[in-house]
Amino acid sequence: MVNSGQKLAVVLLSGGLDSATVLAIAQDRGFRCHAISFDYGQRHRFEIASAKEVALAAGAADHRIVRIDLSAEAGFGRSALTDQIDVPKDRPDDGGIPATYVPARNTVFLSIALACAETIGAQDIFIGVNAVDYSGYPDCRGEFIKAFENLANLATAAATEHGRKFTIHAPLIDLTKGQIIRVGLGLGVDYSLTHSCYDPDEKGIACGHCDACRLRLRGFREAGAADPVRYQAG
Amino acid sequence: MVNSGQKLAVVLLSGGLDSATVLAIAQDRGFRCHAISFDYGQRHRFEIASAKEVALAAGAADHRIVRIDLSAEAGFGRSALTDQIDVPKDRPDDGGIPATYVPARNTVFLSIALACAETIGAQDIFIGVNAVDYSGYPDCRGEFIKAFENLANLATAAATEHGRKFTIHAPLIDLTKGQIIRVGLGLGVDYSLTHSCYDPDEKGIACGHCDACRLRLRGFREAGAADPVRYQAG
Repeated sequence: MVNSGQKLAVVLLSGGLDSATVLAIAQDRGFRCHAISFDYGQRHRFEIASAKEVALAAGAADHRIVRIDLSAEAGFGRSALTDQIDVPKDRPDDGGIPATYVPARNTVFLSIALACAETIGAQDIFIGVNAVDYSGYPDCRGEFIKAFENLANLATAAATEHGRKFTIHAPLIDLTKGQIIRVGLGLGVDYSLTHSCYDPDEKGIACGHCDACRLRLRGFREAGAADPVRYQAG
Repeated sequence: MVNSGQKLAVVLLSGGLDSATVLAIAQDRGFRCHAISFDYGQRHRFEIASAKEVALAAGAADHRIVRIDLSAEAGFGRSALTDQIDVPKDRPDDGGIPATYVPARNTVFLSIALACAETIGAQDIFIGVNAVDYSGYPDCRGEFIKAFENLANLATAAATEHGRKFTIHAPLIDLTKGQIIRVGLGLGVDYSLTHSCYDPDEKGIACGHCDACRLRLRGFREAGAADPVRYQAG
């Protein structure tokens, strides 16, 4: 199923800064990249629009947008990203897991990415999790990624019957946000297409105060670069 | 979030014989059971209708039907259950993984069940996998279930921050089909409501020759009981 000798990869693309950088890294490593995004009942739609633009600009082989409703209306919710819960602003770095945590989100996303990879004959899955400048989510840590890789190699016919083992790549796991941005700028990532804010206004303009905005702004400062996206006044 | 001291469980319910038995077992163990089924682009709809009837008859606390499109149209497919591939009939027991294998299906289903469990405050997930009378799917084996449980306890805020560890229960894992049916009959499961066939006719009547029908028929013979569902002539 591999075309022209080029290895295939599935790349989880959220529309944010990290996954746009991961897509560029996977392409730089020679993979033909199949992007996958999730329409999971998140409160705002700007990140899916950004994911589409990022996939197009990067020249991804294709871009699947998978619908899986994790909203409160579907009996899930319980997160500031999928339910009527306020997004925390200017939150101190206390190490706690914030209200934006979505139950088992990366487990669900990686599982569907695995189904996609097995279907198309890819053995490599790239995800932009980061355990340095992050919000404390348990499913962004290296031990979670390792456990998922172990699971994938027990779960699938590809791995157990055909010897095609899966690798879950998390190339950003040990980088600071500033380092991620420097890598991305070096690979030509257009960060103006990305969307990070958890609580944008109705035009998609970033709030500047949620965890995602604060990490992003600090990263651009650390990288010595200007953030090309707009922020609300104040 | 636990009501009246009764522990909550999430029970994966396919509409088939095994998961109907698992629901009865979980209830018998004292759990208040939240059933979850998946509308994943399977070629026929009878199993979801059966799941609804089974959940209702058992008096499940509620029944979520989660849509997640793993069909060929959505860029997945590659299974006789979700794509235009013939369901194997009267297949010899050769140990190979048959065409009805759906890439990473139980990984996807358990991940979404985990999201559901964490959302409602349940720590117990029941799944009707079986490694004796089964079709050779890798994601029906005990080592897969153990690996998923390990993942769940690294992936979630419930487990990592609040000390609420998850247990994945697979009470049928070492039973023969006949033993499963005997347990279910003892717990009052109404197997006339269940649907097992991979390739029913347009009225939902079972073919009698696919792997699922053959295992089911053999199980009822072994249990010394009559299968209450109808089969096509021949």
